[in-house]
Amino acid sequence: MFKINTNYQKLPGSYLFSTIGKKVRAYQAEHPEKKVISLGIGDVTQPLAPAIIEELHRAVDEMAAAETFKGYAPDLGYEFLRTAVAQGDFASRGCDIQPDEIFVSDGAKCDCGNIQELFSLDNKIAVCDPVYPVYVDSNVMAGRTGVYDEKKGIWSDVIYMPCVAENHFAPELPKETPDLIYLCFPNNPTGSVITKSQLQEWVDYANRVGAVILYDAAYEAYISEDDVPHSIYECQGAQNCAIEFRSFSKNAGFTGVRLGYTVIPKALKCGDVSLHDMWDRRHGTKYNGAPYMIQKAGAAVYTEKGKAQLKQQIAYYKENAKIIYDGLKALGYTVSGGVNSPYVWLKIPGTMTSWEFFDHLLQNAGVVGTPGSGFGPSGEGYFRLTGFGTRKNTEEAVERIKKL
Amino acid sequence: MFKINTNYQKLPGSYLFSTIGKKVRAYQAEHPEKKVISLGIGDVTQPLAPAIIEELHRAVDEMAAAETFKGYAPDLGYEFLRTAVAQGDFASRGCDIQPDEIFVSDGAKCDCGNIQELFSLDNKIAVCDPVYPVYVDSNVMAGRTGVYDEKKGIWSDVIYMPCVAENHFAPELPKETPDLIYLCFPNNPTGSVITKSQLQEWVDYANRVGAVILYDAAYEAYISEDDVPHSIYECQGAQNCAIEFRSFSKNAGFTGVRLGYTVIPKALKCGDVSLHDMWDRRHGTKYNGAPYMIQKAGAAVYTEKGKAQLKQQIAYYKENAKIIYDGLKALGYTVSGGVNSPYVWLKIPGTMTSWEFFDHLLQNAGVVGTPGSGFGPSGEGYFRLTGFGTRKNTEEAVERIKKL
Repeated sequence: MFKINTNYQKLPGSYLFSTIGKKVRAYQAEHPEKKVISLGIGDVTQPLAPAIIEELHRAVDEMAAAETFKGYAPDLGYEFLRTAVAQGDFASRGCDIQPDEIFVSDGAKCDCGNIQELFSLDNKIAVCDPVYPVYVDSNVMAGRTGVYDEKKGIWSDVIYMPCVAENHFAPELPKETPDLIYLCFPNNPTGSVITKSQLQEWVDYANRVGAVILYDAAYEAYISEDDVPHSIYECQGAQNCAIEFRSFSKNAGFTGVRLGYTVIPKALKCGDVSLHDMWDRRHGTKYNGAPYMIQKAGAAVYTEKGKAQLKQQIAYYKENAKIIYDGLKALGYTVSGGVNSPYVWLKIPGTMTSWEFFDHLLQNAGVVGTPGSGFGPSGEGYFRLTGFGTRKNTEEAVERIKKL
Repeated sequence: MFKINTNYQKLPGSYLFSTIGKKVRAYQAEHPEKKVISLGIGDVTQPLAPAIIEELHRAVDEMAAAETFKGYAPDLGYEFLRTAVAQGDFASRGCDIQPDEIFVSDGAKCDCGNIQELFSLDNKIAVCDPVYPVYVDSNVMAGRTGVYDEKKGIWSDVIYMPCVAENHFAPELPKETPDLIYLCFPNNPTGSVITKSQLQEWVDYANRVGAVILYDAAYEAYISEDDVPHSIYECQGAQNCAIEFRSFSKNAGFTGVRLGYTVIPKALKCGDVSLHDMWDRRHGTKYNGAPYMIQKAGAAVYTEKGKAQLKQQIAYYKENAKIIYDGLKALGYTVSGGVNSPYVWLKIPGTMTSWEFFDHLLQNAGVVGTPGSGFGPSGEGYFRLTGFGTRKNTEEAVERIKKL
């Protein structure tokens, strides 16, 4: 008789954003007349930039003719995209990352979730708290996290690094030594950043204790301050200890297009085993590449036209974040994030829990956000709003919150 | 100090098709003047059908306007595609599969590779021998396969079901009871099929012993004989024991477009735990859906226009397979497959091993095929050729083999 992977049974509730989706659909079914504004799930709303649309049409036409039709993509992704990425995201910032250290994929979420497969099941993970749920949940499914304390909302074998107002939402080096350290800057959900010298401390620490940093830089395009690193490879020695995840979802509006990449430097090794080779083997065995058309669309992001158009798109979302930030601040809320990030992180006034505030906002303002406790115990009492809505909806959401 | 998942170290060599790709590139680099014909990797060559191209352009335009732009897809895939699939692939054949039992993905390879995560690590797998390498390799990576015997090319904890000429390349019920049974019909690599009553025996067996059948029907569109089932759900009781994988790669030429789906009936349970719920959780946590544009392209496959165009495309590839089959047979080779399948399986004459024959064919005819031993020990002495080339190349390949 077959048996299931019982680690799945340990997961409390469903995936955070699935839960939010269900709650919103239930509310909408009960109140079909109400217009709900979603500033919750972090999904973008602006159409794809014209340079990307043009390239997509061109690539579709290529698929229509035998001479230019493309079948299976190369395992690591097309050379034209990996070269554009190596130049546009790394060489241009002085990072020595070669095209063959870049693995193109259908998004950072898959890669962030799958990367743990490369590591021993008794490796210990450290995560920021609050944190993007995928890091922890994927390790729960693998059986790496021990026992869940429902009351505290924590796992016995996970090292939590609280990110709260007191430390400016920046994690401190953990007391217990981890094997794998998940870091995400600009941070999801808090919108906080760390400086290059702060990140260098993490790189030095990882190299000292023999840990791997799993660095999620999905929001790097939102950085506006000079001393904030766009890539962990701006730090000395990162090539020996860090894997970086990148996404096209937020910098180019690809949430429904699906494209991302993961950098595994060849210098990153465990003894003489190269993690690059392991990920290569995984890609070859369990993955079949991102669609040709979409890799072409990805390359358009790095053209002069694409860059100019996307700069505007990001500015639009950042302006939304500023409207939320300024609006809530004027109302007396304590807010952070929003400057180098599309996310505004607000302290819930009074004694409501995050989920109570979620329901309160949904029921009374028709505005959807994300409860901080969904990201971890230290997120309790906080709430995330995103700048990814339309301008009109963003302004209206702030107006509605004013009237609460 | 972090440690790796040492199961990866147990994998012998690289992924089969990556190895072939490397060998071909090396040959081509040495002989840039030679025109190599690939009938190896199973990649398609015909352009996308006009109905699909039209729909892709339309969907790209939708992504260009704020009113029609689509962000994250629903977790299971768009309703429009799941409904088309439920109707076109199941209801039309009398199978009771509901749209919410269908999980849209970026391809059957990923799903086949990832599905084992739902099961206990001490579950025992049974596979046909020869077999599509992903089934075994993904279980090796998870640590479910025991010790590898390099000489025999087998894993200590895998139940092998030889599929050889003597049993018409159809597996027999195993002596040792498995927990998970991988079946693929029409078969990759042998091109063999089994009848509906033969498949019913497998379903009855799985229900009797409490095993799950992981049924890969990626090549169902190539079936031409009446008593061959297109879906395992044509068999009574399959909903209680079977998961089915489907691909758009071969029936619609989507190898470079990436789309597939997996059916997990809600009735499939381990005690009171639903495998459907578990896969739903996995999709929500580690996956972000297939691109909207590509789901629209998938829906075009089920339109009247799409169906008519794809019928022609499949007939083209099947005619190629017939050309290979007839050509080799006339040369005195022992061949099978090709009738309900794009794959022709040939017995290597004389004493050459599969890899020796691979090199022989590449060096002396400039034709690339797939060595049978790459699919498992019982594949030794066999060789796979595919009908997915162009007509011209297929004919030329047969001519070149004639001259050997």
